[in-house]
Amino acid sequence: MCDANGTAVGTVLLENDRMRVTEWRFAKKGDNTGWHTHAYDYLVIPMFDGILEIDLPDGTRVEASLRDGIPYDRKAGVEHDVINGNDFECAFIEVELLEDAKPT
Amino acid sequence: MCDANGTAVGTVLLENDRMRVTEWRFAKKGDNTGWHTHAYDYLVIPMFDGILEIDLPDGTRVEASLRDGIPYDRKAGVEHDVINGNDFECAFIEVELLEDAKPT
Repeated sequence: MCDANGTAVGTVLLENDRMRVTEWRFAKKGDNTGWHTHAYDYLVIPMFDGILEIDLPDGTRVEASLRDGIPYDRKAGVEHDVINGNDFECAFIEVELLEDAKPT
Repeated sequence: MCDANGTAVGTVLLENDRMRVTEWRFAKKGDNTGWHTHAYDYLVIPMFDGILEIDLPDGTRVEASLRDGIPYDRKAGVEHDVINGNDFECAFIEVELLEDAKPT
């Protein structure tokens, strides 16, 4: 992730040649990552049961229902702002693959 | 992970061309993955605060203190059996990188 400037807190927990692992923590409802474009393919592992609201470049807002420990993956290039839609603190773990994908 | 035949339950939650994400769940103390050799570089994200006991090929047992959401990474080739050292059910998320690492 890059260019984020929201109120959520990103903490790099681990980084090696192949991947970077970041905790994104949202202290309260409405806290957000800030607008950012993903430079790498990535994986998200939610550490809570609840909702993330996701603002998209076309002006729409979508709601994602997440479950503790149930991952989802996305490709590089995604642009969005991610917002805590819950009345409680929440966090997720982001794993970015720092290498280019192999040609298929 | 491969060749595991213990009492812990491995559930593949997500797999794509680049990575496989598996939940390993240990219902009770002493449950284990079974002996296995890691074919891929991997990441572990614990979903609990507690202990894993790890048996190594030289006959030694080491104890790893884990914290919820704090990851660690290892390279392919690791051989071990991983055992629940806690008086409670626990689980971790394993992320395997299915591509060969780039030459450095």
